[in-house]
Amino acid sequence: MNFEKRIESSATKMVKAVFPNTTNHYDTLFGGTALQWMDETAFITATRFSRQQMVTVSSERIDFTEAIPAGKLVELEGRVTNVGNTSLTVTVTMVIEDMYSEERSEAIKGNFNMVALDENRNPTAIKI
Amino acid sequence: MNFEKRIESSATKMVKAVFPNTTNHYDTLFGGTALQWMDETAFITATRFSRQQMVTVSSERIDFTEAIPAGKLVELEGRVTNVGNTSLTVTVTMVIEDMYSEERSEAIKGNFNMVALDENRNPTAIKI
Amino acid sequence: MNFEKRIESSATKMVKAVFPNTTNHYDTLFGGTALQWMDETAFITATRFSRQQMVTVSSERIDFTEAIPAGKLVELEGRVTNVGNTSLTVTVTMVIEDMYSEERSEAIKGNFNMVALDENRNPTAIKI
Amino acid sequence: MNFEKRIESSATKMVKAVFPNTTNHYDTLFGGTALQWMDETAFITATRFSRQQMVTVSSERIDFTEAIPAGKLVELEGRVTNVGNTSLTVTVTMVIEDMYSEERSEAIKGNFNMVALDENRNPTAIKI
Amino acid sequence: MNFEKRIESSATKMVKAVFPNTTNHYDTLFGGTALQWMDETAFITATRFSRQQMVTVSSERIDFTEAIPAGKLVELEGRVTNVGNTSLTVTVTMVIEDMYSEERSEAIKGNFNMVALDENRNPTAIKI
Amino acid sequence: MNFEKRIESSATKMVKAVFPNTTNHYDTLFGGTALQWMDETAFITATRFSRQQMVTVSSERIDFTEAIPAGKLVELEGRVTNVGNTSLTVTVTMVIEDMYSEERSEAIKGNFNMVALDENRNPTAIKI
Repeated sequence: MNFEKRIESSATKMVKAVFPNTTNHYDTLFGGTALQWMDETAFITATRFSRQQMVTVSSERIDFTEAIPAGKLVELEGRVTNVGNTSLTVTVTMVIEDMYSEERSEAIKGNFNMVALDENRNPTAIKI
Repeated sequence: MNFEKRIESSATKMVKAVFPNTTNHYDTLFGGTALQWMDETAFITATRFSRQQMVTVSSERIDFTEAIPAGKLVELEGRVTNVGNTSLTVTVTMVIEDMYSEERSEAIKGNFNMVALDENRNPTAIKI
Repeated sequence: MNFEKRIESSATKMVKAVFPNTTNHYDTLFGGTALQWMDETAFITATRFSRQQMVTVSSERIDFTEAIPAGKLVELEGRVTNVGNTSLTVTVTMVIEDMYSEERSEAIKGNFNMVALDENRNPTAIKI
Repeated sequence: MNFEKRIESSATKMVKAVFPNTTNHYDTLFGGTALQWMDETAFITATRFSRQQMVTVSSERIDFTEAIPAGKLVELEGRVTNVGNTSLTVTVTMVIEDMYSEERSEAIKGNFNMVALDENRNPTAIKI
Repeated sequence: MNFEKRIESSATKMVKAVFPNTTNHYDTLFGGTALQWMDETAFITATRFSRQQMVTVSSERIDFTEAIPAGKLVELEGRVTNVGNTSLTVTVTMVIEDMYSEERSEAIKGNFNMVALDENRNPTAIKI
Repeated sequence: MNFEKRIESSATKMVKAVFPNTTNHYDTLFGGTALQWMDETAFITATRFSRQQMVTVSSERIDFTEAIPAGKLVELEGRVTNVGNTSLTVTVTMVIEDMYSEERSEAIKGNFNMVALDENRNPTAIKI
């Protein structure tokens, strides 16, 4: 599979409903839950791109532009945006989607750097 | 938005990693977790199609064709396949995807019937 | 143990309180949580009947007759209702019980088909 | 309903499978999870007996006689064993049940004291 | 390390926010969640003191002096208060802390008895 | 309370055991769980410092220096390291601690920027 095709086929979407077990006492999505979902999206995207063992080595600056109220949907999307020797970058966006209209707005965006590991859990080249 | 377009734009994908907190003591995805994910996919798909309050009224026969081992990815996809007066049907498939190869196979498929509710929680016509 | 006695002694009850971490944004029990509890009840009932490795192979049509508000109790009961060669059927009912009166009503009912597996995870005869 | 009948009809059973999301790193049921299940059983039993708002005011000495390995079933049973003016005692037992034999043994036993609250959340007489 | 120093350095603090996924339908911290957190605190404190495998053998009487409303912080503290031959006692307190003032009050206190296990999971002397 | 004292008294510790429900399929702490714990620590630290409504507006670069195996303890510590007009920065460190020795090493470190909100959820001055 060529490079462009791998980026497309590894792009990963997840839609979630903001239910009470994901919110804080302001009835908005707890920031920690948002980060957990974003990291899971990054992990799956990176794994699908490389088909190797991948782990998070760093997250870059992540801006929480908007609070996300309970009773909304959120759509996460992960996409490989940079590929290095042993690591790659996944850009994850989280979009708020109203349940009862077509209204959508980007709430959070961040880059996750993921490294490929060999069977001894040392960094290894990403197979291209 | 026309009917075909609404079906396309409401189609909902979710990818998940089968981590230890989702498995039974055979180290395979617990059937109850699979059903929970499928119902969540059906709920989101139905809500996106109708932009109305939707609840599950029934699930039809669901076949668990294959056990899903820990350490796999699963991709759920929900798609509206029938629209009645006050209810609609979402077909949900769950595909197993290997982490380290392009191998994929359908593991579970089922239909969920969802009804639209008005503000008094009585069934109401699906807006078309 | 004879057949009738095995059915009685494997019948399995579970009572649960509908707390905020089990509800959707309508403050009713999330359908996916209900399905998860029913499958767990079916699994335990089948295991107690056969004392063999059991997995879910299918759920038949499940009707959600009534929404289950937060702050109610639910009682699940699983009972073996059919025994085949390598599989058996567990009928699971979920009854809503008011916390502050004796009022009870059946909310959900469904059949789960469970298959017995040998040590290689192939279907095997249910020991009778 | 007379006193004896209320004790019988409020007796509450819960069966659970010890899956990986309930265990510690020794692959045995985490003590905190056991306590949580016991308190939930006590709460439901007390509520069913009194049909009033009940909260835990104290747990008495609880002995963990036996470790409970992953892959076992546990059956909890709550039963009202003493009724005072504004409070009552629920005795909760947790029995280990092997999945693949009829072997059972009591693992944990404890008393939970529950008080009835009025609408202002002050202690109130248990209706007898 | 001498005895006093081990008690100090094993003392363990945990602060938690009472979010919706930890509460009952009265919007107060569910008693079972409180017990789970206390046992986890006891386990960590005991492990840090002994640096051996530790498991809970009993909890002594635990009083829930005050209900803990959603939207509060709680601070748990575990401290070794008695050391026997193969077991030790951890006293765990849970203090409610208001988010928006310096107001604090003790809500729950209890003793947990923890035993040291050798590699065969038999009780063994606590190394002093 | 003066500035230095507020920084000291708001410093927040949390110790956690890496149990199976927090790990990925490599049996190491899932990165998303680590981020969730760090954000919760930042939120509590910021709230204790300001005694105002605080939400996460951004996380700065976070490095995951070391994988954290199941069966370890982790100690999180949050500390206010910068205070602006309407926002403040909490530095959160996560230290791995072996259960069976005094060995400790820093695994993750990151800064979280938290903003104070008034009752209309607009940014407001941090009270100093």
